[in-house]
Amino acid sequence: MGHWFIGIDLGGTSMKLGMVDEQGQLIGKTEEPTSRFVSPEVGLDRMVGSVKLMVDQTGISWDNILGLGIGLPGFLDIPRGRIVKLTNIPWENVPIQRYLEDRLQVPVSIDNDANAAALGEAWSGAGVGIRDMICITLGTGVGGGIIANGGLIHGVSGMAGEVGHIQVEKDGDLCSCGQRGCVETLSSATGMLRLVREAVNMGKQTRLQKSVEQGSLQVQEIFEEAKRGDPVAKGVIGTAIDGLGRLMAILSVVNNPEAFIIGGGISKAGPFLFEPLQRSYGLYALSQASAGVRIIPAQLGNDAGIIGAAGLQAKQAKVL
Amino acid sequence: MGHWFIGIDLGGTSMKLGMVDEQGQLIGKTEEPTSRFVSPEVGLDRMVGSVKLMVDQTGISWDNILGLGIGLPGFLDIPRGRIVKLTNIPWENVPIQRYLEDRLQVPVSIDNDANAAALGEAWSGAGVGIRDMICITLGTGVGGGIIANGGLIHGVSGMAGEVGHIQVEKDGDLCSCGQRGCVETLSSATGMLRLVREAVNMGKQTRLQKSVEQGSLQVQEIFEEAKRGDPVAKGVIGTAIDGLGRLMAILSVVNNPEAFIIGGGISKAGPFLFEPLQRSYGLYALSQASAGVRIIPAQLGNDAGIIGAAGLQAKQAKVL
Repeated sequence: MGHWFIGIDLGGTSMKLGMVDEQGQLIGKTEEPTSRFVSPEVGLDRMVGSVKLMVDQTGISWDNILGLGIGLPGFLDIPRGRIVKLTNIPWENVPIQRYLEDRLQVPVSIDNDANAAALGEAWSGAGVGIRDMICITLGTGVGGGIIANGGLIHGVSGMAGEVGHIQVEKDGDLCSCGQRGCVETLSSATGMLRLVREAVNMGKQTRLQKSVEQGSLQVQEIFEEAKRGDPVAKGVIGTAIDGLGRLMAILSVVNNPEAFIIGGGISKAGPFLFEPLQRSYGLYALSQASAGVRIIPAQLGNDAGIIGAAGLQAKQAKVL
Repeated sequence: MGHWFIGIDLGGTSMKLGMVDEQGQLIGKTEEPTSRFVSPEVGLDRMVGSVKLMVDQTGISWDNILGLGIGLPGFLDIPRGRIVKLTNIPWENVPIQRYLEDRLQVPVSIDNDANAAALGEAWSGAGVGIRDMICITLGTGVGGGIIANGGLIHGVSGMAGEVGHIQVEKDGDLCSCGQRGCVETLSSATGMLRLVREAVNMGKQTRLQKSVEQGSLQVQEIFEEAKRGDPVAKGVIGTAIDGLGRLMAILSVVNNPEAFIIGGGISKAGPFLFEPLQRSYGLYALSQASAGVRIIPAQLGNDAGIIGAAGLQAKQAKVL
């Protein structure tokens, strides 16, 4: 008989729930829309119901389930297992850990979603066997999760790994956080789309103009037009990658990771992202800190959050 | 009967050796010039002799000495206990751990000097009880040591904490590391003296001119003239502190420490450094990551390195 861990990844769109074995492999998962979780009372009840249903369906005995971990977007009091305030989900001041432990009678841990995804990649994804790594997620924003000495770094208020808010342009553009020149203003989807719009507004010629005017521009289209030589598309991608190279150069003299694991929608650009990123990093990074450092794509995709959430309890159980 | 740890801080000028108790208190120390350690053969023999002499003089039984830790300047292979190459001391490829373990029959650990100093402050200095902290040393360069989850962060090649080489000025001045705009070019003694020289060369009026021409300028004099209102001195200090504020803002969204502990010669400027530094940090840092974060002076001065070196073994012995 083995042991299993349950992972929950609660996002703005859906709640993903999975059963994970001792090797960090997902052996079953379900997904339901977050709209069903509108209040904490209803949401926690549904969560309990969904967990019990999954345990029944997999046929695993509760005795062999060592715990439940949950990745959440927003501000958390991790040591006390409390939600302070979630992003895009109207839950505030919820003692989620205590509630679920009372109802399910298994140990429960919480962490933020970026940290859970990093732990997932470390456990059974791109970071297997790597004790010092940084996951960077390139999506709507630029997120991160840091593993040092084999463990997640949280910091005093859970803000460790918020690497999107590292300033790479002094007096650069205003970021949603209120500061200027954060890497997120250049290298996130939001930042790249804004840079294209600014170029169009300045009258620069680009095949992206129509999509900008229709409001339908996506990052994928920027990469496609860059491949065809569109100068605005190439410029915006160059700026985004330059910012990421500077970010990773900084991180290399802070935590000196063995690998950067790059995930999120933008990472799907593949070699069109990774090859110039390797050059940009090489240009800015201190060679003693960057020699041999790998920049690799995340492997678990949308499952990283579930697996890593389960991993929070695998850590507690010393399985991970 | 208690237990004791021996710490050695080998620097370019002197080797400091001390006996440290289980509370991280230094109960005896000696110092001798590094010039006596010119070759590894001679140096290691002298080290062994000095350690034995100290143990004899303190009257502590070897049975109660749990280990010896050594802080070293330069490139190290920490897991294998080997010196790769030291800075300002002509030692290369020295298996120092194995040699000293054979001769002294106690466990030996090595680490770089900045990490040892950070561990010293964490054990019995300004960082007691703080699980996430970053020590920044403002001297000839800008050095650092990072403690996260209560332990030192080394990274894959021991370059973690080299925070002086974080870029804070895109396309800024050339740094000794080969990159541009590192915080060390603005906020180290070397950087500040250079900025004053540049101002003098540009013909700016300053009371520091004479010292620049005589080659006798020290950082202390810059702070003194700034207090008296000298515009060049004020400008250079403002630039240095602006750079440090940016550095600490970055570190707050990477490791989110509870405290920054500031040491090194420049930290002796006291409130003339710390008060504007708090403002600069407040200006640049993300508020969720900086709220309540303390910026405090190091407490152990030159003893931090010895105490922290001993602390390497206290960690091994689970005393720290």
